[in-house]
Amino acid sequence: MFNPFTKKNEKFEARPRTYLDHASATPMLPEVFTAMTPYLTELFGNPGSIHTEGQTAKAAVTNARTKVARALSVQPECVTFTSGGTESNNLGIIGVVKARHESGIPYEQIEIITTLIEHPATGKTFEYLGGLGVVVKYVPVDEGGQIILSQLQALLTPATLLVSVAYVNSEIGVIQDIGAISRVISKYTKQQAIDIFLHIDAAQAPLWLPCELSRLGCDLMSLDAGKFGGPKGVGALVHQKRVPISPISFGGRQEQGLRPGTESVASIVGFAKAFELAQSSWQSNAEKVGALQQYFYQKLSELIPTAVINGVVSDARVVNNINVSIPGIDSEFAVVTLDVAGIAISTKSACSSAGGGASQVVQTITNDTARASTTLRFSLGLQTSTQDIDRALTELAHHVAKIRA
Amino acid sequence: MFNPFTKKNEKFEARPRTYLDHASATPMLPEVFTAMTPYLTELFGNPGSIHTEGQTAKAAVTNARTKVARALSVQPECVTFTSGGTESNNLGIIGVVKARHESGIPYEQIEIITTLIEHPATGKTFEYLGGLGVVVKYVPVDEGGQIILSQLQALLTPATLLVSVAYVNSEIGVIQDIGAISRVISKYTKQQAIDIFLHIDAAQAPLWLPCELSRLGCDLMSLDAGKFGGPKGVGALVHQKRVPISPISFGGRQEQGLRPGTESVASIVGFAKAFELAQSSWQSNAEKVGALQQYFYQKLSELIPTAVINGVVSDARVVNNINVSIPGIDSEFAVVTLDVAGIAISTKSACSSAGGGASQVVQTITNDTARASTTLRFSLGLQTSTQDIDRALTELAHHVAKIRA
Repeated sequence: MFNPFTKKNEKFEARPRTYLDHASATPMLPEVFTAMTPYLTELFGNPGSIHTEGQTAKAAVTNARTKVARALSVQPECVTFTSGGTESNNLGIIGVVKARHESGIPYEQIEIITTLIEHPATGKTFEYLGGLGVVVKYVPVDEGGQIILSQLQALLTPATLLVSVAYVNSEIGVIQDIGAISRVISKYTKQQAIDIFLHIDAAQAPLWLPCELSRLGCDLMSLDAGKFGGPKGVGALVHQKRVPISPISFGGRQEQGLRPGTESVASIVGFAKAFELAQSSWQSNAEKVGALQQYFYQKLSELIPTAVINGVVSDARVVNNINVSIPGIDSEFAVVTLDVAGIAISTKSACSSAGGGASQVVQTITNDTARASTTLRFSLGLQTSTQDIDRALTELAHHVAKIRA
Repeated sequence: MFNPFTKKNEKFEARPRTYLDHASATPMLPEVFTAMTPYLTELFGNPGSIHTEGQTAKAAVTNARTKVARALSVQPECVTFTSGGTESNNLGIIGVVKARHESGIPYEQIEIITTLIEHPATGKTFEYLGGLGVVVKYVPVDEGGQIILSQLQALLTPATLLVSVAYVNSEIGVIQDIGAISRVISKYTKQQAIDIFLHIDAAQAPLWLPCELSRLGCDLMSLDAGKFGGPKGVGALVHQKRVPISPISFGGRQEQGLRPGTESVASIVGFAKAFELAQSSWQSNAEKVGALQQYFYQKLSELIPTAVINGVVSDARVVNNINVSIPGIDSEFAVVTLDVAGIAISTKSACSSAGGGASQVVQTITNDTARASTTLRFSLGLQTSTQDIDRALTELAHHVAKIRA
């Protein structure tokens, strides 16, 4: 297994591992571990305590919040640390609907919009709200996976409160044009003199794309440290000041009253360190890994010409994602076979994988069940090399040849 | 500051710190940090992934779950890892009410019972449910802080669904007689042939008291690793199999479908290690720290005879808690003064502290506003010595003498 701390493939030295599943989990960066360690050892105070131990912990959380806020050009109080991307999506989506509902509007008079290609943390949250009576609308996406803007425009009504979409789709890597979506919404809200908030799940973005909320034109953003070189179990919901959000869990007054519970100090410190590193180098990361993606496309067409790429192939795809369907293969069997050969890839997103079955994302964009049940996702990372790609595609080509024979 | 890793008071060597706020945060045990480290470095996989990296992470979570389940004599699938005690209380309380509601019972026909001396994670969650229409009842406690069983009995009706109480109160350390509460409930549920579930917040218990659910007679239990030598930001809700619970956040199918989001692998491993250590040594811990508590009481009566102890003084008080009111003092000023002298204590719970003001717990049990606004909480830990107690009480006595002069 590749060990970023020793830069070696330990335990598997005889058979080095090729890890191409960075969309599921990124190796934690050594700098992040170093930043966290004091708060996992001697600096153990509760940030809610008045004494020195508590204030030391509080300063660490404040410093982390300021770093993240600065990287995103928002006020520190607009950064709410959570337990991960899933909680961030739940808080952002339910929290905005709850605030509107508490202002006296029945659920049935609240409309929210998403797509059918979202991560379950968004998709299932919308289903839950639908069950309460909220009107849920799904905006169609094109065969590349991008929202059809004219269709979005057609769905907006004076009752629309929220549009939620992934900045980068976790399965097929399509980047939504947040600026264009924002302009469609703004044009309508100005006409109608109402507020519609744009929430984006940016879990897959920080290593490869700029994330400043105002530049993108979004109002809320979900983040997850485990996807950009930080620890698992910590995320953030970032919001523009104007967005009313109600808490969805109850207890102490931590996180500006929006998210109760003793702050997970070490993880929050790790989040900030990883986020700062990611956002300060996204351009060079994208350049480097974008070249590998081009290399991957080329090798793929040479070695497995029957493979088709799912999602757009253009600048509107994140640089580290390649999602393919290969006619006739069994996705899970292919993943297991490659794993035995030392290569880690996935069929779809880890959060969806537990369910098994075809990819809802690919089904939606292609309307082709055979294609949706033969998907493989390769997601590259900062440590990926052309040798990793050669190895993965050579093994996959062997596997495909074997099952066809 | 005391460093459990070097067993020295680092950074403050010239003026060693006396940390008597273990109810807010415990120092993380070195064994726990060691157990977590691999999962914060090379073993970074997502437990939802099929490949080796994922399965290694999954095995760590499964192993942790099994350890906790074994220590509590429940099935592993009855242990749900969360982001902390607050989320555990929210999931346990709202989740049980939500499951009942989803079975077709209107909120207005569901009754739930707690006390007025609970931690905000319970108190505010009850208030939220009250706002939905659920009937919230508060069972009176006696002047020691224990539930009055005859009053509990009188509150039970066929609509009662849940009783929630802290096993150990975080401010005054009173231990509720969970067995006796359970028997009152059982007697009634058998008569009526209904189910009433008993939830206990056991955040303050694992280092000092046995926690097996069936021995205690409870149906749900909340835990928080940051209170028993583990990391912050990870907790568990443990439930008996018979208890229907609905998830309160939405996403992937992690944690038996009850709590979505990528598992916080390292923190879960740390939770299990710390919990195993706590529960395997609670008796010797209690013996050792119980002797220090007796020493504290004696020194207190010598040095500050005007101090009165809040909460019961008997076996029904956890061994590490001493909560006192001292006529005429300003709690926060006393805490700050002691902090400058190198001693960390608190006024009440860290989660309540942000609000400032008097202790609702002490107000409730004493009905004495002066007493409730002059509280100080000392909470001892495994590293506490008689010297720490001497030092804290001597400094406090100086402070009291000074403000009286």
